[in-house]
Amino acid sequence: MTIRTVVWGENVHEQKNKIVAQIYPQGMHQCIADALNTDPAISATCATLQEPVHGLPAARLAETDVLIWWGHAAHGDVKDEVVERVVQAVWSGMGLIVLHSGHFSKPFKRLMGTSCNLTWREAGERERLWLTSRNHPIAAGLPAHFELENEEMYGEPFGVPDPLETVFVSWFQGGEVFRSGLTYKRGAGSIFYFRPGHETYPTYHDANVQKVIANAVKWAHNPQPRIENVTLAPNVPVETALEPIEQRGPRLHQAGEEGFH
Amino acid sequence: MTIRTVVWGENVHEQKNKIVAQIYPQGMHQCIADALNTDPAISATCATLQEPVHGLPAARLAETDVLIWWGHAAHGDVKDEVVERVVQAVWSGMGLIVLHSGHFSKPFKRLMGTSCNLTWREAGERERLWLTSRNHPIAAGLPAHFELENEEMYGEPFGVPDPLETVFVSWFQGGEVFRSGLTYKRGAGSIFYFRPGHETYPTYHDANVQKVIANAVKWAHNPQPRIENVTLAPNVPVETALEPIEQRGPRLHQAGEEGFH
Amino acid sequence: MTIRTVVWGENVHEQKNKIVAQIYPQGMHQCIADALNTDPAISATCATLQEPVHGLPAARLAETDVLIWWGHAAHGDVKDEVVERVVQAVWSGMGLIVLHSGHFSKPFKRLMGTSCNLTWREAGERERLWLTSRNHPIAAGLPAHFELENEEMYGEPFGVPDPLETVFVSWFQGGEVFRSGLTYKRGAGSIFYFRPGHETYPTYHDANVQKVIANAVKWAHNPQPRIENVTLAPNVPVETALEPIEQRGPRLHQAGEEGFH
Amino acid sequence: MTIRTVVWGENVHEQKNKIVAQIYPQGMHQCIADALNTDPAISATCATLQEPVHGLPAARLAETDVLIWWGHAAHGDVKDEVVERVVQAVWSGMGLIVLHSGHFSKPFKRLMGTSCNLTWREAGERERLWLTSRNHPIAAGLPAHFELENEEMYGEPFGVPDPLETVFVSWFQGGEVFRSGLTYKRGAGSIFYFRPGHETYPTYHDANVQKVIANAVKWAHNPQPRIENVTLAPNVPVETALEPIEQRGPRLHQAGEEGFH
Repeated sequence: MTIRTVVWGENVHEQKNKIVAQIYPQGMHQCIADALNTDPAISATCATLQEPVHGLPAARLAETDVLIWWGHAAHGDVKDEVVERVVQAVWSGMGLIVLHSGHFSKPFKRLMGTSCNLTWREAGERERLWLTSRNHPIAAGLPAHFELENEEMYGEPFGVPDPLETVFVSWFQGGEVFRSGLTYKRGAGSIFYFRPGHETYPTYHDANVQKVIANAVKWAHNPQPRIENVTLAPNVPVETALEPIEQRGPRLHQAGEEGFH
Repeated sequence: MTIRTVVWGENVHEQKNKIVAQIYPQGMHQCIADALNTDPAISATCATLQEPVHGLPAARLAETDVLIWWGHAAHGDVKDEVVERVVQAVWSGMGLIVLHSGHFSKPFKRLMGTSCNLTWREAGERERLWLTSRNHPIAAGLPAHFELENEEMYGEPFGVPDPLETVFVSWFQGGEVFRSGLTYKRGAGSIFYFRPGHETYPTYHDANVQKVIANAVKWAHNPQPRIENVTLAPNVPVETALEPIEQRGPRLHQAGEEGFH
Repeated sequence: MTIRTVVWGENVHEQKNKIVAQIYPQGMHQCIADALNTDPAISATCATLQEPVHGLPAARLAETDVLIWWGHAAHGDVKDEVVERVVQAVWSGMGLIVLHSGHFSKPFKRLMGTSCNLTWREAGERERLWLTSRNHPIAAGLPAHFELENEEMYGEPFGVPDPLETVFVSWFQGGEVFRSGLTYKRGAGSIFYFRPGHETYPTYHDANVQKVIANAVKWAHNPQPRIENVTLAPNVPVETALEPIEQRGPRLHQAGEEGFH
Repeated sequence: MTIRTVVWGENVHEQKNKIVAQIYPQGMHQCIADALNTDPAISATCATLQEPVHGLPAARLAETDVLIWWGHAAHGDVKDEVVERVVQAVWSGMGLIVLHSGHFSKPFKRLMGTSCNLTWREAGERERLWLTSRNHPIAAGLPAHFELENEEMYGEPFGVPDPLETVFVSWFQGGEVFRSGLTYKRGAGSIFYFRPGHETYPTYHDANVQKVIANAVKWAHNPQPRIENVTLAPNVPVETALEPIEQRGPRLHQAGEEGFH
């Protein structure tokens, strides 16, 4: 079975901005999906902001192993109900890869619980990504460092929780650094944030960047059945306790009652 | 300077339930604050759901070093604007201690980015807390384990991110376990979740529980000035780059423009 | 390709103690290897203390994807050169699963950098393992909890660093708890500590225990080529710097010199 | 009570190399100690390799709150018994700050359990340290970034475990990056690794560097009494179990016997 991957693209600048449209005539999402589909282990499709429910109905998310998210200009247009659906899919086991300006997307901010802010500069400067975790699955087949000749700068401090693992750190020509590859887990879902990908540069045509994303899809894939009712807080009655106990002391809840949420 | 601590109490069952009112005639929050105020390093006051903006106007939060949160029946009644204010105060450096059923409070769920669910049983069974991190500041002066003869059971899996540190793990008479003392950091704010404290038992009168909370207040206190504009993502113009660079390649933003959020 | 797994067994009590010999006539290591070999993705062999270089010559370790370690009475008899070889194999990408009393083995203590101590009681009491990380690969196919009717107790505090992930926590009949499934990474090697397995009980015949170990083998397997010269600290001469720089200021090392170790 | 701090210096190049002797006429250790002693909360003294037991007898370590370690050329000359004493002091609660080339010191390698390797270049290039954890106690009073005009380069990958927190990341003029401020905990002891400090440059005269080290001393200080017998694994007899249990099943150990180590 291939890993069912959905590349979600905001698809705004591709429509409005000539430069972006020239670099990514089918959209950045399609460029990323095409690259993924050269890997026989992955089968990637696209979804965009403009589709009904942004192309992410519950039924589709239920059959998505890994979701990739790129957004920038229209974070605020993403409906909260879709965000909540994505977040719960992650908790129940779907992998999530957040790219570049997706650091400010609603799903990423929801899952991190932080401001996710940073400093930035759009000057087409050189970025060099250094591998900080040798032989990490996400870095399989990659050199110890690789360069993107033109990128937007993102600088520290990056307003995210300390990650499980730091996989890449970026050097920028203008003098900044950035933790550009970070892993997290939220519920049963693995999350990878990957920095590069400003829309006015051909970053997603870069072979190393494509390799990182394909590796990340495999790393984030959890083949186990999705957890159902992932927010449930079940009561365990005294009668079914694993060790014999008796009801003692005053009670707030009567038998069979639900808890508060 | 003492540590300015606010104990936030939902104050619902204290008003509605005779048992709770008998154990905590002034409310659980007041019981906790009174215990804290026996420590000369701490000065604690209370805030409750029923006050305007739940007793947490911006001006008060700005002068709060550590906020303690207990809620249960009325999580849904807490206004989102107050939640956002609390969350941003944490990011900017305020300490937060979340107690017991506060695992399902809006601020905690927002800061964790997870469902925060668990299993539970209200049977007055014995809980024994084991210290898992010897000499942790939050455990200063505590024995290797201590018991609460009557407590509500909370069982694993606890739907939270893997913590920075696990400080306590609980044993329950009915056969469950729970990671009952966990540390996190979100932005500049330190967060401690502490499990005990069901309202129908005299948990907050317990000397060991009081000791843990007082220790946690000191541990969570960040004496540095609060970070201002904690969500800002400042642009760094080419002209002020720390290393000399020149503008290259196509641009999306014009000079002086704000980024997207 | 199957995952080449070596089960290392101390093989002392199996030879000296009638009870152990009856439960594990071919040794605990062979029981574990036999169970693993029922999984078509794994091919497991054994190595023991009594073999030359404890059955772990460099050539064999170089072809070992995952090493499983069980030791108890003879930790001190394991040669330091073999320990160093195992440790460096982990750094270079070999997976390591440490079982039960292996918490005090030389390789585990070396890799943790801590005392790895705990409290213990050999009373044949009930242990119940709770899953704390739902859908973790190591817990695939397992129930939310499972029991071992007779086990040795290990109690907190467990003297290890805070792990990347806590996968299981144990409840003991006598009143203790223990973090019984912990993940770590050291260099490119993934490490899993799993608590159960006292030699006088039939723990490694238990289907759930066998399932955990097989899952852990797959989780710990890093298919990338082993890192060579894993301790090397290479000098990067000025002439080959990625950005043009010139030699400045006073120097300690002359060009081409090695660094200090 | 002031924080009793010992600055351990290898004191080799200060004696053998004119450049180093000119910058640090009293040794790097004394320069660091002098700076610390301007802070009324800290009282710092020195110890060197050349003293009996390297100036670190058990009695002195027992009264040391925080140990600072700088070594480079003579790591191999540090006696293993002293290393073990330092390591156990950390486990029992002593703070440890490891500076620069101390990444390859015996105590740091022992406590990390990894190779601790990196790449390096001695070219007097510019280093810029970026704060990655705003308002972290170790960064109190520091700007968002600061520069050292001449430093040795250390490059990723840095062979250490993923830290609890990343506090600083360095940018180097020649194109490399390095995680230059990392926190760890081993037992009850807090550890901070701080990168800058090549001996041929006046780094420890820099006000920002001095500020970081003073902050780190306060952060690493654990005022609780040192843990005694920190490696002990005590048996808990059936008779003293916290919950009533009876001896069941076959036994390896007889009552009162010690466990294996």
